Amino acid sequence: VSPATAVPSAVRGAILAVGGGEDKLGDRVVLKHFVELAGGRDARIVVVPTASRVQDCGAQYEDLFQRLEAGSVRALPVQTRADAARPELLDTLADATGIFMTGGSQLRLGSTLGGTPLARTLRRAHAGGAIVAGTSAGAAFLSEHMIATGDNGAVSRSRGVTLAPGLGLTNRVVIDQHFSQRDRLGRLLAALAYNPFAVGIGVDEDTAAVIGADDVLHVVGSGGVTVVDPGHVNFTSVGRAGRNDPVCVLGLRLHLLVRGTTFNLETREASAGELVALHA
Amino acid sequence: VSPATAVPSAVRGAILAVGGGEDKLGDRVVLKHFVELAGGRDARIVVVPTASRVQDCGAQYEDLFQRLEAGSVRALPVQTRADAARPELLDTLADATGIFMTGGSQLRLGSTLGGTPLARTLRRAHAGGAIVAGTSAGAAFLSEHMIATGDNGAVSRSRGVTLAPGLGLTNRVVIDQHFSQRDRLGRLLAALAYNPFAVGIGVDEDTAAVIGADDVLHVVGSGGVTVVDPGHVNFTSVGRAGRNDPVCVLGLRLHLLVRGTTFNLETREASAGELVALHA
Repeated sequence: VSPATAVPSAVRGAILAVGGGEDKLGDRVVLKHFVELAGGRDARIVVVPTASRVQDCGAQYEDLFQRLEAGSVRALPVQTRADAARPELLDTLADATGIFMTGGSQLRLGSTLGGTPLARTLRRAHAGGAIVAGTSAGAAFLSEHMIATGDNGAVSRSRGVTLAPGLGLTNRVVIDQHFSQRDRLGRLLAALAYNPFAVGIGVDEDTAAVIGADDVLHVVGSGGVTVVDPGHVNFTSVGRAGRNDPVCVLGLRLHLLVRGTTFNLETREASAGELVALHA
Repeated sequence: VSPATAVPSAVRGAILAVGGGEDKLGDRVVLKHFVELAGGRDARIVVVPTASRVQDCGAQYEDLFQRLEAGSVRALPVQTRADAARPELLDTLADATGIFMTGGSQLRLGSTLGGTPLARTLRRAHAGGAIVAGTSAGAAFLSEHMIATGDNGAVSRSRGVTLAPGLGLTNRVVIDQHFSQRDRLGRLLAALAYNPFAVGIGVDEDTAAVIGADDVLHVVGSGGVTVVDPGHVNFTSVGRAGRNDPVCVLGLRLHLLVRGTTFNLETREASAGELVALHA
């Protein structure tokens, strides 16, 4: 799996990695932002509730997006690999301007959708310009390498995290969610230490890391996004440490982003952006 | 308060910041290291149990260090500011080769010892070569700026930490303890963001950050030491963020050190040191 090749002349859609727990009753900043990016009253939104075991999870998000006056909304009833090959569902997905994957279990998501026509259609829609969002497990699944399971807590243990292939909309990042709320820095660092080529993105609840086609990440919502850049790591003990030993990683760069600040995944530069202007 | 001026020709003693919960029954690696640095069978160890409300805390450490065959051990019964001016206690302290401050409350420690003859004598002993160790609250108190109280958890909130003057043996670091066990990265980052001149040192339980007279930090014990270097921070929102807003900090450097690795507080370079040699 590698990022889908963009259709010539199409601009790849933005990716919204939501940390879970997005506000659904108040200002709904994160959900509103998704609807707006998808086209607002012209949006054709498709909800993929596959990660969830909650029967009406898809219907709940249909209702939420309708209240936010999205043009059209449809939740796809995809619970099995057979569902993920049903032509009428694929047609709906291919026509979407915004795709939203709910929370639940990223292993359920990966094992149900991986390698199916639906996953291919989703990747193609994204390459053609559709916005793709995921919350909680849905966020973890967006990237090429996803955190499948891991220990919570700040200690980085050498076997404290398990990676699995994700949907592959980008391979530049490894995404973790409920980040501050579940103290997941330790497992994100362990995941990066395995192979320090990707940037670690830890998204707080009620917060989205929005990655544009230009590979600039910005923040929407009430929390923060922790960016861990291992590009300058000059030593890690992860290949040598015993099981459950604390991991040694030297030379990480760390940025705590909030609304208004950005991180360029290409140049790996953080910028205070609007935040300086707002307070100048 | 600034670091005590070294007596001419004397080499300042090492500082051992212990993250609390050091092993007292098994290998006792951290406590043994302290006894050895203090001179082993020639050591004259003084225990300062002021942080603790436990009646026999001093006696317990006397017993621990005697079992480790330290030359002599004495716990000073200092519970009040009046105690901290008793000449016979000051004489004992001035003659120590190793001084150990127990855990408890760093505010109790600071408010009892701050500005007393005992604090001055302790600083002078350190400048003259005595090793000074502190565990838990005792570790927090070692540096010029100490974390007095703060929220646990990974989120860095703009008012999530309160600093207070510490003992002042070094002003190069801000020390936090029980670091991974209580998920204190958030409050350490908030503390650094106030004024990013010092290096943040988060010490895990059963682990010591040992800072030598050469300002090289190394690690002893079973856990890790998290080093946060804000020397390249180019933006922080801490002066502008509202109470309890997440803090933005851009440009931090982060190193997870374990036994065998070092961090030079002068050059701010992390080194895999022995760890490379051990596995070469």
